[in-house]
Amino acid sequence: MGSPLLSDLATEIIIPVCAVVGIVFSLVQWLLVSKVKLTPEPNRSPSNNNKNGFNDSLIEEEEGVNEHNVVAKCAEIQTAISEGATSFLFTEYQYVGIFMVVFAILIFLFLGSVEGFSTKSKRCTYDITRMCKPALATALFSTASFVLGAVTSVLSGFLGMKIATYANARTTLEARKGVGKAFIIAFRSGAVMGFLLAANGLLVLYVTINLFKLYYGDDWEGLFEAITGYGLGGSSMALFGRVGGGIYTKAADVGADLVGKVERNIPEDDPRNPAVIADNVGDNVGDIAGMGSDLFGSYAESSCAALVVASISSFGINHEFTAMCYPLLVSSVGIIVCLITTLFATDFYEIKAVKDIEPALKNQLIISTVLMTVGIAIVSWIALPSSFTIFNFGVQKVVHNWQLFLCVCVGLWAGLIIGFVTEYYTSNAYSPVQDVADSCRTGAATNVIFGLALGYKSVIIPIFAIAIGIFVSFSFAAMYGIAVAALGMLSTIATGLAIDAYGPISDNAGGIAEMAGMSHRIRERTDALDAAGNTTAAIGKGFAIGSAALVSLALFGAFVSRAGIQVVDVLTPKVFIGLIVGAMLPYWFSAMTMKSVGSAALKMVEEVRRQFNTIPGLMEGTAKPDYATCVKISTDASIKEMIPPGALVMLTPLIVGIFFGVETLSGVLAGSLVSGVQVAISASNTGGAWDNAKKYIEAGASEHARTLGPKGSEPHKAAVIGDTIGDPLKDTSGPSLNILIKLMAVESLVFAPFFAAHGGLLFKL
Amino acid sequence: MGSPLLSDLATEIIIPVCAVVGIVFSLVQWLLVSKVKLTPEPNRSPSNNNKNGFNDSLIEEEEGVNEHNVVAKCAEIQTAISEGATSFLFTEYQYVGIFMVVFAILIFLFLGSVEGFSTKSKRCTYDITRMCKPALATALFSTASFVLGAVTSVLSGFLGMKIATYANARTTLEARKGVGKAFIIAFRSGAVMGFLLAANGLLVLYVTINLFKLYYGDDWEGLFEAITGYGLGGSSMALFGRVGGGIYTKAADVGADLVGKVERNIPEDDPRNPAVIADNVGDNVGDIAGMGSDLFGSYAESSCAALVVASISSFGINHEFTAMCYPLLVSSVGIIVCLITTLFATDFYEIKAVKDIEPALKNQLIISTVLMTVGIAIVSWIALPSSFTIFNFGVQKVVHNWQLFLCVCVGLWAGLIIGFVTEYYTSNAYSPVQDVADSCRTGAATNVIFGLALGYKSVIIPIFAIAIGIFVSFSFAAMYGIAVAALGMLSTIATGLAIDAYGPISDNAGGIAEMAGMSHRIRERTDALDAAGNTTAAIGKGFAIGSAALVSLALFGAFVSRAGIQVVDVLTPKVFIGLIVGAMLPYWFSAMTMKSVGSAALKMVEEVRRQFNTIPGLMEGTAKPDYATCVKISTDASIKEMIPPGALVMLTPLIVGIFFGVETLSGVLAGSLVSGVQVAISASNTGGAWDNAKKYIEAGASEHARTLGPKGSEPHKAAVIGDTIGDPLKDTSGPSLNILIKLMAVESLVFAPFFAAHGGLLFKL
Repeated sequence: MGSPLLSDLATEIIIPVCAVVGIVFSLVQWLLVSKVKLTPEPNRSPSNNNKNGFNDSLIEEEEGVNEHNVVAKCAEIQTAISEGATSFLFTEYQYVGIFMVVFAILIFLFLGSVEGFSTKSKRCTYDITRMCKPALATALFSTASFVLGAVTSVLSGFLGMKIATYANARTTLEARKGVGKAFIIAFRSGAVMGFLLAANGLLVLYVTINLFKLYYGDDWEGLFEAITGYGLGGSSMALFGRVGGGIYTKAADVGADLVGKVERNIPEDDPRNPAVIADNVGDNVGDIAGMGSDLFGSYAESSCAALVVASISSFGINHEFTAMCYPLLVSSVGIIVCLITTLFATDFYEIKAVKDIEPALKNQLIISTVLMTVGIAIVSWIALPSSFTIFNFGVQKVVHNWQLFLCVCVGLWAGLIIGFVTEYYTSNAYSPVQDVADSCRTGAATNVIFGLALGYKSVIIPIFAIAIGIFVSFSFAAMYGIAVAALGMLSTIATGLAIDAYGPISDNAGGIAEMAGMSHRIRERTDALDAAGNTTAAIGKGFAIGSAALVSLALFGAFVSRAGIQVVDVLTPKVFIGLIVGAMLPYWFSAMTMKSVGSAALKMVEEVRRQFNTIPGLMEGTAKPDYATCVKISTDASIKEMIPPGALVMLTPLIVGIFFGVETLSGVLAGSLVSGVQVAISASNTGGAWDNAKKYIEAGASEHARTLGPKGSEPHKAAVIGDTIGDPLKDTSGPSLNILIKLMAVESLVFAPFFAAHGGLLFKL
Repeated sequence: MGSPLLSDLATEIIIPVCAVVGIVFSLVQWLLVSKVKLTPEPNRSPSNNNKNGFNDSLIEEEEGVNEHNVVAKCAEIQTAISEGATSFLFTEYQYVGIFMVVFAILIFLFLGSVEGFSTKSKRCTYDITRMCKPALATALFSTASFVLGAVTSVLSGFLGMKIATYANARTTLEARKGVGKAFIIAFRSGAVMGFLLAANGLLVLYVTINLFKLYYGDDWEGLFEAITGYGLGGSSMALFGRVGGGIYTKAADVGADLVGKVERNIPEDDPRNPAVIADNVGDNVGDIAGMGSDLFGSYAESSCAALVVASISSFGINHEFTAMCYPLLVSSVGIIVCLITTLFATDFYEIKAVKDIEPALKNQLIISTVLMTVGIAIVSWIALPSSFTIFNFGVQKVVHNWQLFLCVCVGLWAGLIIGFVTEYYTSNAYSPVQDVADSCRTGAATNVIFGLALGYKSVIIPIFAIAIGIFVSFSFAAMYGIAVAALGMLSTIATGLAIDAYGPISDNAGGIAEMAGMSHRIRERTDALDAAGNTTAAIGKGFAIGSAALVSLALFGAFVSRAGIQVVDVLTPKVFIGLIVGAMLPYWFSAMTMKSVGSAALKMVEEVRRQFNTIPGLMEGTAKPDYATCVKISTDASIKEMIPPGALVMLTPLIVGIFFGVETLSGVLAGSLVSGVQVAISASNTGGAWDNAKKYIEAGASEHARTLGPKGSEPHKAAVIGDTIGDPLKDTSGPSLNILIKLMAVESLVFAPFFAAHGGLLFKL
């Protein structure tokens, strides 16, 4: 067995130091972004030359740098977007607040009731020679960690949105100086979001563990059970971010397009459209806050799943603190690796032309994965004993440190493969999307059929990658292996989020350029940034789904362990009906979210029509539309419409657990996991492919693309129909399924002791 | 325990008698249909008045009865369709023949090798005190029963198609006399198909069992293991029927529409369109032969699954022949019940107006279900001992006869519920389809989004119905319960098929009326028949999927028993990766079948274009198109295109079983079952809803519908796009999934001993 090379003291120092380094790094990035002034500059902005890590060798024609009006207008639009986003968040927080209070009470009552609110210590479940803290304490501390997880998620989302809406106009302004400068501003802003989230998540979790330890002392089993609340907190906020945000962004988008583009025939992002600010707010709400909270949830959940399994394995039983902190150490190293990776994009390498953007972003993924492999090897070598035991549904399984290294790696590399496969199926540089574009010749129907078939097909390789990842990590280290594989996939979360947040920032920058009436040339530069962002957005979604699958499985395993189930046998009616009903839930949930987008968009359409009809001079550009009302409508509608799907997610585990018991609940979790991941991947990729097929025809970059175009041709019209269908699929119903599968699993995990003690009423009668 | 009331001798008599009664009844129906003459009649057809079971009280205006030209033309078109269908079948049979030979050899070699082709008897697996026949004998008899099942399926499909293509022009001619007379002809022809299939399936199975018994004697375990080949034979023919036929019908349909309706602007079923005969052939190939072989497969498989479990339960161990034959007795009573039910449609009740058609068809379902409930009660009472034991994964479970009655009933009634839910979501008499039609106002995109959401939503209740069915039957009688529940759902197969086959016959009748240039009024009558057929087609599909789910589960259970697996634990990596990859297979398969339809349709488009361009006078109606080439193209393309999806289905169990072993294969089967059923139901219902939303707008029967129409309006165009997308979903990829889940399960069952003995090579290394 032996002990790890790293001393406990070193561990106690390394983790917070890495987290603080991450936070400082993100603040530095913020500082660099803030050097772009949103006030008209007297003479060619001397303040931010030679300082952003690149020099004047980037020779591109600068234009419009001295137009004071443009700068003022950009500032004004940015303020409107920022205020809209803040207004959405604060409205959402009211509901989040109520939800948190209610759910915190529920957690306390359910978990407290396991031993009838007794304050007496009890024998530990897994080591009956020791005394553990009472269930009431676990209830109390679970509730506290739930609140902490939720608050950390909310805070990270809020800050990410702030920097995004702070950076979009700055990106537009930098685009006047060249595509390279604009890229760096957008990327740095994304990095602020990425590092803040990763570092905050780690730091709060670490501090919480240390604080709880003051009470729990030697009872690590109870300590890490209580910590699972952190994952639930982080993940339940993702419900609001992903589902609510997803409905918001598409309601605003579809509403703006249906009246603006279709009825009034004005271009996208035209400032006369009352929904245009809401649409831009939506990009931030859905893609920044939503994606951020989703990945934060995955990160918190996989850490908690790993910790809870470790606490009942030899690490926990023998109180090996460093080994116990292995998941946190992996994340700590991840922050440092991502920091180095970021420098490749901002300092070591220089974007000189439009064609450099996409490779630069893709290289981020490859560099971070390669470096992280080394990082994991080091952590596995110094932080783990050469062999140890892991709890595996009732028995302790011997595991070697190199096996755990492989578990983390297989997750990390599976993430990369999923990313590249997603890119292959959604980027218009490859044949699948080009074939879909080609099918537009025979109309919208063939476009839709080909698009759906593409989405179905795109599931194959990611599922094999996930299956291999599961098999390797599961075989080596049971559910602990799955949890660390998920952590491996998420270890480069800071870079992943930076790339992902870069997309909507560039998208917004383009919108601002259009609204501020900037030249065609600048618009072209922001469009190039945006196009690269579209592909990375698809990669990010693939990544989020892949990690959600692993995380859910890890949580499922932790749930099963905690509920005291040794076998989940498909050959029992209780489990099988759970499996088939669970496999149905993603369909039910998708039907709900698709309907929600429809209803919310309809309300937006009505308001936009009303403004066009009642505000005189709006179409002529002499009167200003009432942006705020549209923002309010999107906000209210999205929060109202997220209640039914949210209720489905939150109530299913409670109802199944209470009435049918833990076996059926296991079936439901497994069924929704294996079915949901397919629906999510196919929906995201189908939508992404339709979007880029349309862009392929519009851009007309090849001989083939030109035969299908130009804008307004019959094939282009067919492509637009596909794109509109894909919008709710790829931005709402698809990604929301991550939440469905993760949240049900973590909720089951937290309530497992209650279900095990009092559940299955229907079968008891 | 006690013995059943029914003596073995009575059982030996009842089963064949019921089967023969079914066959005779179907021949009588055929005779009645044949009384409609396809030669011009000298004076108002005295021969078939007052004889079809209805009298002259049906007063509708008759018209065109004496137009000799029309009759001759109808006869000519019918001959063309019949020849096309026969040509397809015979081409298919060449491939079927090769497939059968290859697969028969494979079965023999794989099963023979289990004990190294030893000819010595061995100890029985479940009762080691007795001697059983060698594995080589099981290999030989399995091969024989495989061939018998395949031939029976082929024969039933062939005869069904013959009667369908014999009846379509006769239905058209009867439509001149009134809608009631036409209805009866179409319905009787459907009944021929239904009864022939149900009775033949039962009779051949019964005779085979009795013949095999001559060799096997007391070794019932070996006997009924060998009989499972019958299910595999029946089911593998369904691969050709459903998948090949599904590709054929949609390739011809889409090909005919894309050139005829879109490019040349000629109406549907116009005789100038070279693909029009192929399109009509397709209705028979896909909906009659395809659906027939699918349901025959389900019927044969559920019988075999029940028998193989019974053989190792107390029925088999104690050699209780009557109880052993319980599944066959249920089917026998089913034939009699369906016979009485049919009389309600043809003799007891009279169709006087268009509005009576749909209720008459729906009443068939209700009457047969109610009568069958009584029938099952009687069989359960007289054919079963009051209590007995059923083999349940290693242990014998005590079951009472009333529990088995409930198992069969729950399947029967679940089928009815699924049928009615399907009708609710796909008939334009209810709000879901009307909402989809309404969404066409804002274009094709919203139509598609609403249609997809409808399909997702329509999954909920059927899955709960199936889950309850599984829970009840599984809890009472383990896998035997599931198998008899599936048989319960299929016990009214004769009526189900009659209703189902009625649809394409009416559809063809309408096509013939159009091509023969009959009056608008007659066309209206055939359209009314067809509209009712559309809804029943959707019900039939729902029914087929529901029974496929139960059958697959029963086969899965039988496979697990035969492979000697006691537990399929989701918490092992081998099973879990099987589960997630299995859940992916329906997507892969659907992507393949959708692509197949696209490629086959493209070939048809090219041929139709070629004929229009090269045959002078074709558009003017002075020259005849070359129908036969189009039929040949559809035939060749569909058979070629079914190879990749067919290979996926046939090879997956072999590859997984040989390389990964029986646990992983169990996971694959469970995963594909729980995921495939959702994809199949949602695809079928989405497609059906789009079809009927279009029809709703076209018919303009309500105030609301008229605001969306007429034909050619923008909403109608949007509806047509939805309909075109739905075609491959509802007629090819959706129903083909039944085959995926069933065939993989039955193949695994047949090869189970081989996999158990020699499989899992990868893990052995």
